[in-house]
Amino acid sequence: MMRERGGKLFSLLALSSAAVLAAGGATADRGAGGMSDEDKIEYRKAVYKVIGVNFKPMGAMVKGKIDYDPELFARNAQRVADVSEMALEGFRGGPHQGNTESLDAIWEEWADYRQGTERFQEQAQELASAAQGGAEWPQLKKQFIQVADTCKSCHDDYRED
Amino acid sequence: MMRERGGKLFSLLALSSAAVLAAGGATADRGAGGMSDEDKIEYRKAVYKVIGVNFKPMGAMVKGKIDYDPELFARNAQRVADVSEMALEGFRGGPHQGNTESLDAIWEEWADYRQGTERFQEQAQELASAAQGGAEWPQLKKQFIQVADTCKSCHDDYRED
Repeated sequence: MMRERGGKLFSLLALSSAAVLAAGGATADRGAGGMSDEDKIEYRKAVYKVIGVNFKPMGAMVKGKIDYDPELFARNAQRVADVSEMALEGFRGGPHQGNTESLDAIWEEWADYRQGTERFQEQAQELASAAQGGAEWPQLKKQFIQVADTCKSCHDDYRED
Repeated sequence: MMRERGGKLFSLLALSSAAVLAAGGATADRGAGGMSDEDKIEYRKAVYKVIGVNFKPMGAMVKGKIDYDPELFARNAQRVADVSEMALEGFRGGPHQGNTESLDAIWEEWADYRQGTERFQEQAQELASAAQGGAEWPQLKKQFIQVADTCKSCHDDYRED
């Protein structure tokens, strides 16, 4: 469901971008589809920075380094799920020239990369739903690890070490 | 309401941070409260980058540079509202040393800066609610300008030119 929704939204974004290009709008007013390479790189880095900062305290709770705080965990899980919807946008139409650790394999194996992102989005949404729904801590820890595994999988294959 | 919720969440974050510090957790596992100066700067830049990229196409629609796309507008309005909840976190406990355009006035006039951020959050939430609720385009344009005004107000006072 998430996947279909994502697909629809990306189509909308592509349409919007085409409209911008057709209208010859100024760069500053273009949507993600009409962004420069550097802008796309900055955008995707920003998206993952926001995800990472909110992911970390959850990881610390799962590892037992800080006390489990149900409200903070649920809030951050929702944030990660929300922002994960933007995770693919800055990668579209690459490779892009600039300061990036992204490997060209992303675009050479685009279908696989997209599916990996969609798995991340789905698992993150499941974690958010479980946390918002008051699931028990052992179940949340298990689901958190499912999300973390989707991160690791793509990082191993598609990011410079 | 947004303000109260934000206040509660920030208190939770502060508590979590205190717990991390008490536990002596590794830097990589700390929440926003325990981040280094550079990490905080990167986080707040990322938050505003994500907001900016999603804000732009709405601005282009309001200016008539691209066609009004209700679904894209509503989606992006919700994104801006969601991410605006993180807008103050990376500024807490400053000024921070690093690559930043933030003026020290932010921390010298913290109550004013915080109120400005809360106005932004409130107006962004109103825009998202209106757009998700199917409000008419003239009303959305008017509300979009309310949000943009809250951006401009803080940029004028608290960001290097």
